Amino acid sequence: MGIFTCLKKDPSSNARRGVVHTRRGDIQTPIFMPVGTRGSVKAVSPRELEELGAQIILGNTYHLFLRPGCEIIEAAGGLHKFINYPRPILTDSGGFQVFSLATLRKVTPDGVKFASHIDGSRFFLGPKESMAIQRSLDSDIVMAFDECTPYPATELQALKSLELTTRWETMSREQPLNDGQLRFGIVQGSTFPELRKRSAREITALDFDGYAIGGVSVGESEPEMLKAVDAAAPELPWERPRYLMGVGTPRQIVESVARGVDMFDCVMPTRLGRHGAAFVENGRTINVTAGKYSRDFTPVDPECDCYCCRNFTKAYIRHLFNVGEILGIRLLTLHNLHYFLNLAAKIRHSIEEGTFAELRAYYSADFSRSAN
Amino acid sequence: MGIFTCLKKDPSSNARRGVVHTRRGDIQTPIFMPVGTRGSVKAVSPRELEELGAQIILGNTYHLFLRPGCEIIEAAGGLHKFINYPRPILTDSGGFQVFSLATLRKVTPDGVKFASHIDGSRFFLGPKESMAIQRSLDSDIVMAFDECTPYPATELQALKSLELTTRWETMSREQPLNDGQLRFGIVQGSTFPELRKRSAREITALDFDGYAIGGVSVGESEPEMLKAVDAAAPELPWERPRYLMGVGTPRQIVESVARGVDMFDCVMPTRLGRHGAAFVENGRTINVTAGKYSRDFTPVDPECDCYCCRNFTKAYIRHLFNVGEILGIRLLTLHNLHYFLNLAAKIRHSIEEGTFAELRAYYSADFSRSAN
Repeated sequence: MGIFTCLKKDPSSNARRGVVHTRRGDIQTPIFMPVGTRGSVKAVSPRELEELGAQIILGNTYHLFLRPGCEIIEAAGGLHKFINYPRPILTDSGGFQVFSLATLRKVTPDGVKFASHIDGSRFFLGPKESMAIQRSLDSDIVMAFDECTPYPATELQALKSLELTTRWETMSREQPLNDGQLRFGIVQGSTFPELRKRSAREITALDFDGYAIGGVSVGESEPEMLKAVDAAAPELPWERPRYLMGVGTPRQIVESVARGVDMFDCVMPTRLGRHGAAFVENGRTINVTAGKYSRDFTPVDPECDCYCCRNFTKAYIRHLFNVGEILGIRLLTLHNLHYFLNLAAKIRHSIEEGTFAELRAYYSADFSRSAN
Repeated sequence: MGIFTCLKKDPSSNARRGVVHTRRGDIQTPIFMPVGTRGSVKAVSPRELEELGAQIILGNTYHLFLRPGCEIIEAAGGLHKFINYPRPILTDSGGFQVFSLATLRKVTPDGVKFASHIDGSRFFLGPKESMAIQRSLDSDIVMAFDECTPYPATELQALKSLELTTRWETMSREQPLNDGQLRFGIVQGSTFPELRKRSAREITALDFDGYAIGGVSVGESEPEMLKAVDAAAPELPWERPRYLMGVGTPRQIVESVARGVDMFDCVMPTRLGRHGAAFVENGRTINVTAGKYSRDFTPVDPECDCYCCRNFTKAYIRHLFNVGEILGIRLLTLHNLHYFLNLAAKIRHSIEEGTFAELRAYYSADFSRSAN
């Protein structure tokens, strides 16, 4: 059995219904992965993740490395035991956070010197260190250490970054992992289609277990992002899973599935939930804290069967946010995660049933800005 | 059927195992009531309250009156529907918060003028207003409007306060309520046993459905508090439920049960849980955020069968608090509420089995400061 099985290909696009095989069980794709940055999907319990039907969650290497530290997680018996989550966990390499959160960065050929955003302590993180940390976390999918190219970048900057990424991922590929840990490579190349293709060719030559498209959702427009996916995805081997990092809105997910992407993660459902926004209908959000909902005794989404929508009204949730009660955050987080996990389930079902084109049209109704 | 049925009297003390009959079902006493100040027991969902075995929760009239306001709760169909909680709810009168939170207070014979602690808006709250609000909330147990005597108070101050309380409760008694709403009177009298007795006689003469001992847990010592209970409880009619407001520690609850009290409420389990403290063993607390727990991979209480203790370690909960994750608050709140609800269950069981004296000895082991 390989790493990825394609169960069905959509005839109208490059969308595919598949399965990623991990040592902690199969993941039905396309899939949305809730983000558990610091060892907890924010405001949600493992039991609720189970009830939501989450198949895999993310952990962030940079955050967990700083707090509580690898020694503690290793002493606990790995990340799964530490946080009491029995299903697959994917950890990123820490590179993105080093470039987006840490300060006093100094890039060397072997990694990055930086100061922690928490207390300024000095650390060094490179391919060797990142692989060693993810090995001690014992995650099921390990991401190679790359340089997330900043946006905007000139073509020359993007090329230099691409070359450094290929060097670091080559080093990442050589490091030992635990039995059964999968290792994914990451394609960079910024908004330049030729660089995306080149990066994809260089990274796939390293023969990773799966491939991610990184350096997206970093400030570029939606058409630019999808152009990058258009350029990279066809270069990735059919028989390996493809993961679009940090994306995105329901429409972006559907459009990326149409381009052959299998896996997604995004903080949007949890982060927006904590700020009072709820996903409804074809991907738009409503702000439940708005005054107009103060006497609205209907659910956030009457069609939704999540715990929030089956039991509570917009007026009550608005009140909870208005007075600062944690339950408000909990309810909208549950609703939004259900929305994204259910979107992935609907995508899978539509590919199986041959109706993906209709589903795509529904979520991309006003998709006028797309390059495709 | 009356309001209160005594199922069994403990031979070693005045403890009693009973049932309070409400229109939303029976409440097995002695009972601990979780506090849902602003329409939510902090960090906990109604489903979790159900799973914890909560029989009745509190709502605070003052807070709900200010936000979201009675009109919205009335439009929702009452507090139960607004917050989606199907079991009995007790609401306080708002008097305590007017005296502890509000500013610019002016006491008149008919109530109190005050400024909201939120935005300074001016309001008037007296027996008529409090009863009308609690009627619109449609709570199952309504508390009479009293003056919570501040601590410390001279005997003369306490007497004046007692007289005002009797006046206000007489007015409270005359206001109409909804069908089936029970109305409890409140005994004041500060730390003066003779005033406690006098207040109890005056209030019981008004024939309420139940009686509370108020003006406790306001800064007095534990022996002073129990002296007040000692003075008031014997004056209260046997065939009505007795409620000690805002109390207290596990030991205080057990000692008050021994003095004939049936009902308790306290923010301690939820508030301490939000600050990282967990109840263990005979009523003491541990601070789970302490550094010494950073590698402690055992539950908060290995004997406890709550969701927190069955699934998570002190090291993980400490990490959650350390990085500010809501799940940490949720887990300790669940544990502490389970502790208090389970304490009440153990008290009930011990009275049934004739072992209350042993249970009392366990929780009052170092009860040297008690007046009793």
